[in-house]
Amino acid sequence: MAHNLKVVKIGGNVINDDAQLSSLLRDFAALPGPKILVHGGGKLATELNKKLDIPIQMFEGRRITKDQDLEIVVMVYAGLINKKITAELQAQQCNAIGLAGCDANMMLAAKRPAAPVDFGWVGDIKQVNASTLQLLIDQGLTPVFCAISHDGQGQLLNTNADTVAAEIAAAMAPHYPTELIFCFEKKGVLMDVQDENSVIEHIDFQNYQPVLADGVIHEGMLPKLKNCFYALENQVAQVKIGAAAMLADHQAIHTTIVP
Amino acid sequence: MAHNLKVVKIGGNVINDDAQLSSLLRDFAALPGPKILVHGGGKLATELNKKLDIPIQMFEGRRITKDQDLEIVVMVYAGLINKKITAELQAQQCNAIGLAGCDANMMLAAKRPAAPVDFGWVGDIKQVNASTLQLLIDQGLTPVFCAISHDGQGQLLNTNADTVAAEIAAAMAPHYPTELIFCFEKKGVLMDVQDENSVIEHIDFQNYQPVLADGVIHEGMLPKLKNCFYALENQVAQVKIGAAAMLADHQAIHTTIVP
Repeated sequence: MAHNLKVVKIGGNVINDDAQLSSLLRDFAALPGPKILVHGGGKLATELNKKLDIPIQMFEGRRITKDQDLEIVVMVYAGLINKKITAELQAQQCNAIGLAGCDANMMLAAKRPAAPVDFGWVGDIKQVNASTLQLLIDQGLTPVFCAISHDGQGQLLNTNADTVAAEIAAAMAPHYPTELIFCFEKKGVLMDVQDENSVIEHIDFQNYQPVLADGVIHEGMLPKLKNCFYALENQVAQVKIGAAAMLADHQAIHTTIVP
Repeated sequence: MAHNLKVVKIGGNVINDDAQLSSLLRDFAALPGPKILVHGGGKLATELNKKLDIPIQMFEGRRITKDQDLEIVVMVYAGLINKKITAELQAQQCNAIGLAGCDANMMLAAKRPAAPVDFGWVGDIKQVNASTLQLLIDQGLTPVFCAISHDGQGQLLNTNADTVAAEIAAAMAPHYPTELIFCFEKKGVLMDVQDENSVIEHIDFQNYQPVLADGVIHEGMLPKLKNCFYALENQVAQVKIGAAAMLADHQAIHTTIVP
């Protein structure tokens, strides 16, 4: 049986916890069929900022990436976390290859305009190099992406990891039946953000627009949902959102979103 | 005309100087034919140790890689320097792909035994994945290696960059006519280490053993020569040692070593 290409995004606290991360990577390595991992940065970059006494600047809860912050996220995301994950996957017999957007021109981005808010060295993806990704996957390799992109002019850019996962899934969907899987702290999209067990198990994108408009969904979830819908609008077959447990256990409660 | 595969090692102060590095990368990008870049770490890792107030431990001039030092070299070599170089090469129309030894299992190493001296997380290369490297090169990609390897069990290891270059050249030599090029501060192997113009332009490996035994060559040069001879013993066609200028200017004085 041919398997879907799975694009799995991991992030949050699991990145900072060696035991949790190892367990998740074991489950990821065991997934059958072609797959791509996208990882966030967890708190390690923030910790390095603190150790180096470089203040973090925020605007409305979002981080501004100044020169020194960019160096830190490149070191932590593309260096420490990406290579740690790749080496662990290799130990699990998963032939991982760690990549940033500059590598083989995988993710070309544009620096976000400095107005109305200057977020610094932050990039928005313009293009994913699907043909080279396809080549690697067809050789049995498992690409592992950090969320660092480049502008093609020598500038590295900090990029949102959820968006990277959605863009990669969207770019691959014309070439493989593709599903996108977001692993995070919650068990799925919650009807009541205070109630871990209020998981909405099925969302039908087309029929769900009124619900979104109603403001039922917690606003912290909206950017992630926007990425899900973007992927579904671009031929991705389905999106799953839930806790890491769903990688190993198909019965684990999670949210499935279909077009 | 078919070109040799060129394995180019860069290191030392050029890594720390943005203008020098950009100039060197322009020259490297312009080299015709298939090529691989291997870079050292310069002083950036040492600087980060200082900023983080983590003392560097040495034994007879060689660095010991403790837990925190390994995190630092992975961040600086595999993250900051590797991605900066890769992004700059992309801007020069060179389709670079940055790699550490864990990526696609490119460089498998063994931790150096803790006796007689425990150098910590230092690895000696056991195997280079020539077939995957060949695949990337045949697709027009230019691999860019930092000197971080892995042990296949999930452990990253700090590795000598000159040795990495020699091992990669030796692994590729059965598949391509291969030459190894070491760019460093001097113009070549010097007869008199005090005299920059005493470059020995031609060294014939087989006939040179007595000269080495004589102690004519400055001892700081001996480890590099050992790597050169290792490459030549493993089918590498020739080795060049000299200043970065030789990449752009074939007339620039340098040392050529042949079997």
